[in-house]
Amino acid sequence: MDFKLLNTDPKSSARTGELTTDHGKIQTPIFMPVGTLGSVKGVHQRELRDDINAEIILGNTYHLYLRPGLDVLEKAGGLHKFNGWERPILTDSGGFQVFSLAENRKLTEEGAMFRSHIDGSKHFFTPENVMDTQRTIGADIIMAFDECPPGTSTYEYSKNSLELTQRWLERCVKRFDETEPKYGYSQTLFPIVQGCVYNDLRIKAAEHAASLNREGYAIGGLAVGEPVEDMYSMIEVVNEVLPKDKPRYLMGVGTPVNILEAISRGVDMFDCVMPTRNGRNGMIFTSEGTINIKNKKWYDDFSPIDPNGTSYVDQNYSKAYVRHLIHSGELLGSQICSIHNLAFYLWLVREAREHINAGTFASWKEIMVKKLATRL
Amino acid sequence: MDFKLLNTDPKSSARTGELTTDHGKIQTPIFMPVGTLGSVKGVHQRELRDDINAEIILGNTYHLYLRPGLDVLEKAGGLHKFNGWERPILTDSGGFQVFSLAENRKLTEEGAMFRSHIDGSKHFFTPENVMDTQRTIGADIIMAFDECPPGTSTYEYSKNSLELTQRWLERCVKRFDETEPKYGYSQTLFPIVQGCVYNDLRIKAAEHAASLNREGYAIGGLAVGEPVEDMYSMIEVVNEVLPKDKPRYLMGVGTPVNILEAISRGVDMFDCVMPTRNGRNGMIFTSEGTINIKNKKWYDDFSPIDPNGTSYVDQNYSKAYVRHLIHSGELLGSQICSIHNLAFYLWLVREAREHINAGTFASWKEIMVKKLATRL
Ligand SMILES: [Zn+2]
Ligand SMILES: [Zn+2]
Repeated sequence: MDFKLLNTDPKSSARTGELTTDHGKIQTPIFMPVGTLGSVKGVHQRELRDDINAEIILGNTYHLYLRPGLDVLEKAGGLHKFNGWERPILTDSGGFQVFSLAENRKLTEEGAMFRSHIDGSKHFFTPENVMDTQRTIGADIIMAFDECPPGTSTYEYSKNSLELTQRWLERCVKRFDETEPKYGYSQTLFPIVQGCVYNDLRIKAAEHAASLNREGYAIGGLAVGEPVEDMYSMIEVVNEVLPKDKPRYLMGVGTPVNILEAISRGVDMFDCVMPTRNGRNGMIFTSEGTINIKNKKWYDDFSPIDPNGTSYVDQNYSKAYVRHLIHSGELLGSQICSIHNLAFYLWLVREAREHINAGTFASWKEIMVKKLATRL
Repeated sequence: MDFKLLNTDPKSSARTGELTTDHGKIQTPIFMPVGTLGSVKGVHQRELRDDINAEIILGNTYHLYLRPGLDVLEKAGGLHKFNGWERPILTDSGGFQVFSLAENRKLTEEGAMFRSHIDGSKHFFTPENVMDTQRTIGADIIMAFDECPPGTSTYEYSKNSLELTQRWLERCVKRFDETEPKYGYSQTLFPIVQGCVYNDLRIKAAEHAASLNREGYAIGGLAVGEPVEDMYSMIEVVNEVLPKDKPRYLMGVGTPVNILEAISRGVDMFDCVMPTRNGRNGMIFTSEGTINIKNKKWYDDFSPIDPNGTSYVDQNYSKAYVRHLIHSGELLGSQICSIHNLAFYLWLVREAREHINAGTFASWKEIMVKKLATRL
């Protein structure tokens, strides 16, 4: 993998760049749609590519490990071949799901024991086998195995957790460097910077990660219950330490406003289930604000769901029609809102990129943040 | 509406024709995807048009009347404008749903009182107001309001039911002829021939319907629990009576084999929820037989879901991937199988048409029926 820093905004830490993988190039800042089980819920791969203009998608190691399982993924020749998505894929490490979704989990120095949320079967994740698992899934970018403490954790808990995450990170790096890709294209490992909302822990974590000299870095453990201002200040603290010439990925964030604020603080990559999860419930993000399509006010509004929208669903379907579909529990309503929201998120980061390149990001961002926070 | 009979198969009653409506032409025999609530479940209108090659879709009056309701449909300018489907639409009369889905229904000479299956609200359908409702929905082809008795009904029950249906049909015709389309394009009314599995009742019903001299006729009350041989013989009996130069629509049928058998007995139009409903559960219809994609045997089968398939999903997705999606309850699995099955049904009637035109339908049908009945 290769990262070229292109432009930096004069009035903020926002930057543009180009990431090159064996599955193609990615223009940053970028948003990555979440394809939990190898599918972005309700969206065809063709739509991701042609209508949403996704440049990279995410897969969840925890979910893919349980279903379809490593056996079938390896026989398929990796996730790209399995799901037919030919552009880059990033996988998380499963850490977050083990700690938020799995049952009966037990943490030891060696790793995390847990029971599947599906059938109760017992599994054990270690830094080493999680590297092997992501080798088998075949993601272009793979994540270190970490513990992700709640945003409300005490200093003491966060410190001990971070130290475990750091020991695990070193084991991840060792295993990753000792192993080879399975399918003939290269993979890269991003460390995850933890440390909850504590400056000194975040600094220590970022310095430790940076010292391992990888091709990119992730910021984890944010948007997990802490105040939003703490999130923004932790991003600043961490990005002060991380090398400028490597991409930074803020995991699991967030609202359109969160994304612009993080871009202005030097973040390059994002993922979040919000556009699809909220979309399935009829929340529509637009450049003028958010719409709850279930509201009575859209009942007989036959205007396009987003007149400024860039995807075909914006032109083809009206607010009243989508309201009816969501209200009636029709699959198509969820599909339309998911496509719209993802296309909007990709539009947003593309616009940000253009404004950074033009040197007009800061003023554009101020206007957008106000609009995006509006409820229509 | 205009119907031109084109060719008739020398060895069966199969025929090809062309139906002209103000929303475009339809080549018969044709299959109509079911868009219950103004949406074919899991399928975009763009996919219906470009990938499935649907020439006409169906809407359910009972469902559309309850949601979104006539008020919003009329404000939209009819269902075509509301859902963005620009080709022809056919609506059923709601009779079938009132008798199968609604609660506390009470039948009188005047009409059918029932409670909504959604919120228990009380409604009254009459032949007259069901004509008005379909005028408001704006379907190109609208159906008479009828009672649809179970396929196991006694002769006595069926006879009384048919007599009521005939009195209702005359009221439908009267109301329809006294009223005008609401949106500037023409609508046409098809009577529905009932009579359960009783030859003399079916003949009487077909003669009565034919005497009303409409532009097309529907055969109802089949595939509702009667033996399949009874269904086929009722189709023969009815089509013996119905005028040759008018289209015949067999309501709610059926499997691919049912469709070929009915085509060979002179039916021109079909609808059924099977391709979408069964598709959502992972049943895939192909030209070599049916696949239950949930079966373990497809676990690591990376071949296309249907190598002979005509839609893009057939080339883009493998059996193993779709099995994983259906197994995991992912929306995309239902979407893929629905598109595939609908495209397959449209392919099947298109192939039938070509074989009728070429004079080779009968022999082709014999081979296909064997293949289609296979479980892969
Ligand atoms: Zn998120
Ligand atoms: Zn059916």
